[in-house]
Amino acid sequence: MKNTFGTSLTVTLFGESHGAEIGAVIDGLAPGIPVDEEFIASQLTLRRPAGRISTARQEADPFRIVSGVFEGRTTGTPMAILIPNADTRSGDYQRGPARPGHADLTAYAKYHGYEDYRGGGHFSGRITAALVAAGAVAIAALRRKGIVIGTHVARCAGIDDAPFTDLSVDLPRLNSLSFAVLDEAKGQAMREAVENAAARCDSVGGILETAITGLPAGVGEPWFDTVESVLSHALFSVPAVKGVEFGSGFAFADMTGSQANDPIRMKDGKPVTTTNNNGGINGGITNGMPVIFRCAVKPTPSIAQEQQTVNPGTGTETTLVINGRHDPAIVHRARVVVDSVTALALCDLLALRFGTDWLAPHND
Amino acid sequence: MKNTFGTSLTVTLFGESHGAEIGAVIDGLAPGIPVDEEFIASQLTLRRPAGRISTARQEADPFRIVSGVFEGRTTGTPMAILIPNADTRSGDYQRGPARPGHADLTAYAKYHGYEDYRGGGHFSGRITAALVAAGAVAIAALRRKGIVIGTHVARCAGIDDAPFTDLSVDLPRLNSLSFAVLDEAKGQAMREAVENAAARCDSVGGILETAITGLPAGVGEPWFDTVESVLSHALFSVPAVKGVEFGSGFAFADMTGSQANDPIRMKDGKPVTTTNNNGGINGGITNGMPVIFRCAVKPTPSIAQEQQTVNPGTGTETTLVINGRHDPAIVHRARVVVDSVTALALCDLLALRFGTDWLAPHND
Amino acid sequence: MKNTFGTSLTVTLFGESHGAEIGAVIDGLAPGIPVDEEFIASQLTLRRPAGRISTARQEADPFRIVSGVFEGRTTGTPMAILIPNADTRSGDYQRGPARPGHADLTAYAKYHGYEDYRGGGHFSGRITAALVAAGAVAIAALRRKGIVIGTHVARCAGIDDAPFTDLSVDLPRLNSLSFAVLDEAKGQAMREAVENAAARCDSVGGILETAITGLPAGVGEPWFDTVESVLSHALFSVPAVKGVEFGSGFAFADMTGSQANDPIRMKDGKPVTTTNNNGGINGGITNGMPVIFRCAVKPTPSIAQEQQTVNPGTGTETTLVINGRHDPAIVHRARVVVDSVTALALCDLLALRFGTDWLAPHND
Amino acid sequence: MKNTFGTSLTVTLFGESHGAEIGAVIDGLAPGIPVDEEFIASQLTLRRPAGRISTARQEADPFRIVSGVFEGRTTGTPMAILIPNADTRSGDYQRGPARPGHADLTAYAKYHGYEDYRGGGHFSGRITAALVAAGAVAIAALRRKGIVIGTHVARCAGIDDAPFTDLSVDLPRLNSLSFAVLDEAKGQAMREAVENAAARCDSVGGILETAITGLPAGVGEPWFDTVESVLSHALFSVPAVKGVEFGSGFAFADMTGSQANDPIRMKDGKPVTTTNNNGGINGGITNGMPVIFRCAVKPTPSIAQEQQTVNPGTGTETTLVINGRHDPAIVHRARVVVDSVTALALCDLLALRFGTDWLAPHND
Repeated sequence: MKNTFGTSLTVTLFGESHGAEIGAVIDGLAPGIPVDEEFIASQLTLRRPAGRISTARQEADPFRIVSGVFEGRTTGTPMAILIPNADTRSGDYQRGPARPGHADLTAYAKYHGYEDYRGGGHFSGRITAALVAAGAVAIAALRRKGIVIGTHVARCAGIDDAPFTDLSVDLPRLNSLSFAVLDEAKGQAMREAVENAAARCDSVGGILETAITGLPAGVGEPWFDTVESVLSHALFSVPAVKGVEFGSGFAFADMTGSQANDPIRMKDGKPVTTTNNNGGINGGITNGMPVIFRCAVKPTPSIAQEQQTVNPGTGTETTLVINGRHDPAIVHRARVVVDSVTALALCDLLALRFGTDWLAPHND
Repeated sequence: MKNTFGTSLTVTLFGESHGAEIGAVIDGLAPGIPVDEEFIASQLTLRRPAGRISTARQEADPFRIVSGVFEGRTTGTPMAILIPNADTRSGDYQRGPARPGHADLTAYAKYHGYEDYRGGGHFSGRITAALVAAGAVAIAALRRKGIVIGTHVARCAGIDDAPFTDLSVDLPRLNSLSFAVLDEAKGQAMREAVENAAARCDSVGGILETAITGLPAGVGEPWFDTVESVLSHALFSVPAVKGVEFGSGFAFADMTGSQANDPIRMKDGKPVTTTNNNGGINGGITNGMPVIFRCAVKPTPSIAQEQQTVNPGTGTETTLVINGRHDPAIVHRARVVVDSVTALALCDLLALRFGTDWLAPHND
Repeated sequence: MKNTFGTSLTVTLFGESHGAEIGAVIDGLAPGIPVDEEFIASQLTLRRPAGRISTARQEADPFRIVSGVFEGRTTGTPMAILIPNADTRSGDYQRGPARPGHADLTAYAKYHGYEDYRGGGHFSGRITAALVAAGAVAIAALRRKGIVIGTHVARCAGIDDAPFTDLSVDLPRLNSLSFAVLDEAKGQAMREAVENAAARCDSVGGILETAITGLPAGVGEPWFDTVESVLSHALFSVPAVKGVEFGSGFAFADMTGSQANDPIRMKDGKPVTTTNNNGGINGGITNGMPVIFRCAVKPTPSIAQEQQTVNPGTGTETTLVINGRHDPAIVHRARVVVDSVTALALCDLLALRFGTDWLAPHND
Repeated sequence: MKNTFGTSLTVTLFGESHGAEIGAVIDGLAPGIPVDEEFIASQLTLRRPAGRISTARQEADPFRIVSGVFEGRTTGTPMAILIPNADTRSGDYQRGPARPGHADLTAYAKYHGYEDYRGGGHFSGRITAALVAAGAVAIAALRRKGIVIGTHVARCAGIDDAPFTDLSVDLPRLNSLSFAVLDEAKGQAMREAVENAAARCDSVGGILETAITGLPAGVGEPWFDTVESVLSHALFSVPAVKGVEFGSGFAFADMTGSQANDPIRMKDGKPVTTTNNNGGINGGITNGMPVIFRCAVKPTPSIAQEQQTVNPGTGTETTLVINGRHDPAIVHRARVVVDSVTALALCDLLALRFGTDWLAPHND
């Protein structure tokens, strides 16, 4: 499958930056789950650029759910969510030189020049709006069952946020922030660094750290569909994500076994670990502790500096200066996309494990 | 799917550490590919522990291919490879306390106590022998088409190998080493550090870095089946892998767009990038440059120190000292497993893109 | 997967009879294929009821392709086709007694009462409009490669059409008929029988017979993804199809091996069979002869006679007379749906065999 | 996927007629299910030829379960079942003329001559032994939950068995018969007809009719994964099956809606239908009534009469007389294969609906 993710619960994504509409189809969600359109709208707002550190494109993302919802609840049949592209300004774009760091050349290689090249076409970050709308439904479905996903900007422009180790943090409040950090002073410093990069016609990258609480133990498969495999599969679909690590991740490389192993104790009749270096996953299967992972987000490739490149097709060398609206950072906007694909992947894992009705109200 | 990976080319894995046989079924491989049993045996030898820094378990891994090969070549039908468990010493193992850092507790949660707990059962690293045998067939099939995978121990016990940036390195020679490093002096230092850890009844982790050369541009899908998604899905199935990054990976977090973007030039009539921060992948699709990724490998959890844990089922707290044969490092042995799953995932991506016969000799 | 069909080429279906819009997403189609909106419209017209033997619901099916097409050709990325429900008359429908022969009770069992019950909801034949639009794209893509699908009403209301054995018949002309028969006199008799059934407040069933010409030999898999398996999987998704047979099908039961075996001769340098009892498929794989199959279509369950039934949920027994617009036969309208799912399934099989670009113009 | 069937519960098949071993891997079965090796052996015996109307090949099918079973119960991890090919007599077979009605030519087209042609290779009915062994585990798992599959030879050589309408019949007893008929006098007549065909160097076909009792309502999906779609997908993988119909199937073609619709009444607090023309399935979803289907089985293609054919590769015309051991009928042996794939497909549908543990004893 190409633009579809999942096995029991699937999401299918379609659309181009400058096409008529983008959208997503979610299938396999349990029937009877309340669908809160305000929450979907608020998630779309978090993804949308806002303020000085984001691009000026300001669409209201007026989504429509055209199927799969009846009297305010999921029916259990496919839910199609559509978002028209209102403010496309096609005149801004022509097939031009390939933008370095973007998919222009690889799309040309794959689609032989037939791709819709305007604004990155199907590769545009714009498409994540549909993913966020779909993810909002999954996030709300999980929350009903006590499964909460929270993500903060753990690092941006060389500045670290406070660590995410203490999960007594209020994840829902974190999730409502437009630039989600645990330490607001650090967030302020990050935003200033982003503005400075913008002033230099440059952009910056960052790291997102995610915690999932409330997942039952015993979810995932030993080989090939480990929780890490399934989540990383989804996460590496988020544009600009170039690294994923679970628990201590790459820091394991410098640890010893006696440091890395999480001691196990009993608490409230259930086994818990006193540290969580394994990020809630052993042998690919959840152990009941919070699942913790981090995603590396590369700097926005669109920068207003002269860059060396070539023209697709003709293969002539040239230079390129990208003008117009562009984000000097996307890590804070990518956050809600990461939460969205995480929620969709978890709903799939849970449906495979416990059946398609597990998330349904009649199973509460 | 649970223990099967892939869409057009699949691999299915079965077996337990102390069961009768372990094995793998590869399906979807093109017909007519020569099957070199000596190469399979040599790959199995690289996976097998050897010397002072590995466990004493020494099985010859006498594999049998019972289907899918006729007159020395693939038939195009499923190839089943079986490896008996000769030296299992079941007496060594009983259901005991859960080993911290292992899958004992998560297997119990998932399988309700019916799992074969002996030696980690289906979660044992032993199972990777079948994966390596299957991968050897895929590695050889790719090599016929000029696609070469090479991996070195980029970091171990806090010591860095020489960087992998210059791919004029002899990958086949690298692949033949039992402890694969680019700088042998660094490799010697790593092995000494591993021995020191072993002397302290401890273990160490590391990082593997992989390069794939010869992949055509235009392979992969924009959403959900990006090359990063498909490879990470496979790589996170390798036991002990807890992080995967492509190109500059987590280092992107501290880079600016002007540093991160790879300038594009023409060379021999094809677009190339003068740097490779994106690791050969843009928008999830290969760009014709070498694909580069790194995997974090956690320290071996089995250590001969007292650890706090609980008994599965009863939930009583206890302590545990793991005796017997155990590796103080597995990063060097995991290398060939990483190459194997990489090769299998690539064969699948190529078959989906170019058809099931692409790897066949009549298409040479 | 639930409402998605296919592996390399997929189609995802969504919508309800009385929802805002229905639609389909086709993914995995080769780039560069011309998209002929007039042909899509003409296929939709063939599916739509017309004349005295069909329901009075007359929607123009004004579809929109909102993605995946650029400058009149496929881009290679997902194509979403949307059809609004203009003439839904929600007032006609309320949750009433379960209609015998329909999915009302099974939908209630599956979705616990949360389903959109209006007009059959997601189970309505209305949804096939989206499938026909998607199929039209696939039919045209195959025709470019010389692969032609043709279907006639082989039997209806106890009347047989002329046999479909002579494939010198003009399949494209057959495909353009609103009541497709080889012998127009038989077609006239069938239509009269349908009208007679309608006059008795009853409905009739029939058999569709399909021929596929131009398929290369060697497509399909020996076990589980045989051509028969893949096609029947798709065909049994068409509402009212309750039987599928290939070649001589159920007539094989009364044949001997000497009658059933197709003798093989050479013609124009290729092996051909002098009979085609196996319907172009041996061992699940195409042999280069026309693929022939027949689908049994049950009588429309909506009839204006009193029927015994129960109320979903309450479980009280009651009787039901279904009033309003209903088809006394759907076999002639189901024809274009059969062609559509056949084309989509074939595109998938061909993409898996020969790669995603096989249908593309640059491979012509 | 090629030789793998299923989504949550999968079966992967491998092996060739004259290879070292054939086998199957079942994955996704719930843990804790008792595995009865005697029942597996008895199912293999029913598949094996016996008596005058079957081929003389008499292997004891000494299967080995090498993984996935621990202390007599399923572990929940993949179960690999292996059956060595003891009595292969390779000398009997050489690449000869293509056998009409067999897969010799299609295999040659697909695998370019690299296929193992001996005895039909991977296309041989021999491979169904592995499928039967796998199916036996699934049949037993379903039976624990009150779901029983029973199949009889409904027609053979032009002779009808008694109808299968009265399901008060003792299905377990029927399942134990080597030539399973409801009316033993009809069975005797069938066997005589088969012997007569054999005496004429010919073979006969037949029809198998299957009933499934105890399935809960609400299983299956409205589009693409209807119960009919999933079952027919599996059934058309059984060699020689060329037609599948559910409920009244092709007889629907001559029925009216008032005859075809099944009236609904209440019984013991549950809705039931007073007829079962729809074969227990409405809208692709089970309605709680017995699921009924029929499979057309073509006559064995191997007959000892001269037949016209060609040589693969060279394409020269020739004639062929097939000598040696061959079945004059396989319909009675195919029965247990039909039950096997049915059981595997049902276990998958149930696991997708109710979760992987649904069949486990702790859910009893």
